Amino acid sequence: MLKVGILGGGQLGRMLLQAAVPYEVETHVLENDPECPAAQLCTHFTLGDIRDFNDVYAFGRSLNSITIEIEQVNIDALEKLAAEGVVVIPEPRVLRLIKNKISQKAYYREHDIPTSDFVITQVRDELQHHLSFLPAVHKIGEGGYDGKGVQVIKDATDIHKGFDAPAVLEKLVAIKKELAVMIAINQKNETAVYPLVEMCFDPTLNLLDYQLCPAQVDASVATRATQIALQVVQGFRSPGLFAVEMFLNEEDQLLVNETAPRVHNSGHHSIEAMDSSQFDMLWRILLSLPLGSTRMRNPSVMINLVGSGDTGPAHYHGMTQVAATPGLSVHLYDKKISKPGRKMGHMTLLGSDMHQLQKQARELKNYVSVSGGTER
Amino acid sequence: MLKVGILGGGQLGRMLLQAAVPYEVETHVLENDPECPAAQLCTHFTLGDIRDFNDVYAFGRSLNSITIEIEQVNIDALEKLAAEGVVVIPEPRVLRLIKNKISQKAYYREHDIPTSDFVITQVRDELQHHLSFLPAVHKIGEGGYDGKGVQVIKDATDIHKGFDAPAVLEKLVAIKKELAVMIAINQKNETAVYPLVEMCFDPTLNLLDYQLCPAQVDASVATRATQIALQVVQGFRSPGLFAVEMFLNEEDQLLVNETAPRVHNSGHHSIEAMDSSQFDMLWRILLSLPLGSTRMRNPSVMINLVGSGDTGPAHYHGMTQVAATPGLSVHLYDKKISKPGRKMGHMTLLGSDMHQLQKQARELKNYVSVSGGTER
Repeated sequence: MLKVGILGGGQLGRMLLQAAVPYEVETHVLENDPECPAAQLCTHFTLGDIRDFNDVYAFGRSLNSITIEIEQVNIDALEKLAAEGVVVIPEPRVLRLIKNKISQKAYYREHDIPTSDFVITQVRDELQHHLSFLPAVHKIGEGGYDGKGVQVIKDATDIHKGFDAPAVLEKLVAIKKELAVMIAINQKNETAVYPLVEMCFDPTLNLLDYQLCPAQVDASVATRATQIALQVVQGFRSPGLFAVEMFLNEEDQLLVNETAPRVHNSGHHSIEAMDSSQFDMLWRILLSLPLGSTRMRNPSVMINLVGSGDTGPAHYHGMTQVAATPGLSVHLYDKKISKPGRKMGHMTLLGSDMHQLQKQARELKNYVSVSGGTER
Repeated sequence: MLKVGILGGGQLGRMLLQAAVPYEVETHVLENDPECPAAQLCTHFTLGDIRDFNDVYAFGRSLNSITIEIEQVNIDALEKLAAEGVVVIPEPRVLRLIKNKISQKAYYREHDIPTSDFVITQVRDELQHHLSFLPAVHKIGEGGYDGKGVQVIKDATDIHKGFDAPAVLEKLVAIKKELAVMIAINQKNETAVYPLVEMCFDPTLNLLDYQLCPAQVDASVATRATQIALQVVQGFRSPGLFAVEMFLNEEDQLLVNETAPRVHNSGHHSIEAMDSSQFDMLWRILLSLPLGSTRMRNPSVMINLVGSGDTGPAHYHGMTQVAATPGLSVHLYDKKISKPGRKMGHMTLLGSDMHQLQKQARELKNYVSVSGGTER
């Protein structure tokens, strides 16, 4: 039986392991928290630091394949493992390219992929030279995640918010819509493309608020978005599952924002809404099975459940009221502690009418919440 | 966090654990095989015999709730646990009633539930007194499972096949269709009814061949079947998930065959085809959440993958050819050894046209097989 390892044991790892149940595979997880969401669902759990060379190398040596559920991993160790014959999905070279926001942005430019204008900065003071470029978004090269490592620099008075480290300053886009395309590529270079999704962000936390599939755009926009995403992903020349995030600006131009080289928040609805979920699809790549069908079973809306209030043991509110809603699937991530902005779960609602789905999504958001407190 | 135990670690336990992932629950499994399908997916695995009083009692003492995935468990221990405050789903009294085919049949008669005529026999020789009742089916009172413990007695020459133990002799029914209704009942006595399914059996192995949902019957038959199933289940006066199997005979009468007090093979399609799967539904009962929606998302056909050929390490054939079929979900049970007739997995195909689904199901059955061999 193939042995497959996952670097990281968060909710993405948890759902990936859930999707492994129908397959013949021995699953391994490396994470530094024995109570992480994925710890109980793998065949073997290893306590260790996914950013540490020795931990990752020791973990991966006896495996057939290895993948990630977060980019912040030790890529040197993955390169050594790949050189020794472990199949690393996606290839470490691509992880390295994507993990750094500067090289990722440079990749788009080199490959003629539409993206917002940008300049690279090494230290914060350099921002003073780019006042005419503002308003813009400053993104730290390495280490950003879930809204951290990103600052909007509207004008000179915001420069103190910028990063005093290698970073990329991206021209602010007048965003009409945020879209995402998930694409799978296997070892034979075959691709499977998921329907376009539309994401609505919470402006305060910069976290996904809810997400629609299919995106409510013209067919021509959907076609262009798919073509651009294919261009991004095929240029990597690596098997893997990739989520390409884009902006549709006020001029109806599509601009690639970022690519995630892994299962992604924008693909959670695929568990219920697609024939082959993003998690199922990654197993197919890891296990050298044919790519799954990306046929949409139902239109859907997906709502993240993020912590509000204090940090503390998680309390869920309103679950009982919504639990019997037809078409609704609730996913909790088994995180013991809720923190403001922390992803604690998500809900996917299937339906047929997009207008009705969005209305219900807003109602669900009002009913259900998660917060930290001092007791269960 | 609630601690919930499952007696038995087969494929039903495995899929039950998969369905627990979105919930906040600590899962425990008791089984005497550390390599059983459910062993790797629970929070705590306990090695022990589900038929042994001490093993079951020791396993259950520290749990909040306990359920079963097979009837052959120690009911005395469950009664003691229930008396001490552990929530046992379904109630041990109902397990005891159902586990014995004689008392189960008597229950139907007492509750005016249509069922085939029957007589009770204590020893094999008694069959000689019932020659005019033949052809009939002899079912052993205790210990039958998956086609074992059942013999067709066509005439006097078959009497040697009968059971020399307490058993029930049931008049042979001229079966037009085999149907099943899954019903959930929670602690508040609320019910959720799943759409009627139609089962097609392999005549050689007496194992499910494929199964359609919705059943291809008149609406009036579906309504009657649902009413009868509700009558069966409500008479138990116990929360739980129950599969009521029925025959539709040549005169269009519905006759209850057997009831399973647990998640059941006839409900596997609910993973993909229903809003709340049978496994999800049982967690809702165990965790005192509202019952889920039994809305059908898609018509479906479910095909069991049973071992053929020799006993030995499992080999799967044709998986690659069918893996990308739109609407198809393959579930393997992680059983190391294939045996003739052993349930090794199942496939669920979603579609819209029932005729097309059945055609595809037959094609899939021809492509995919499992057999035992001497090598992987």
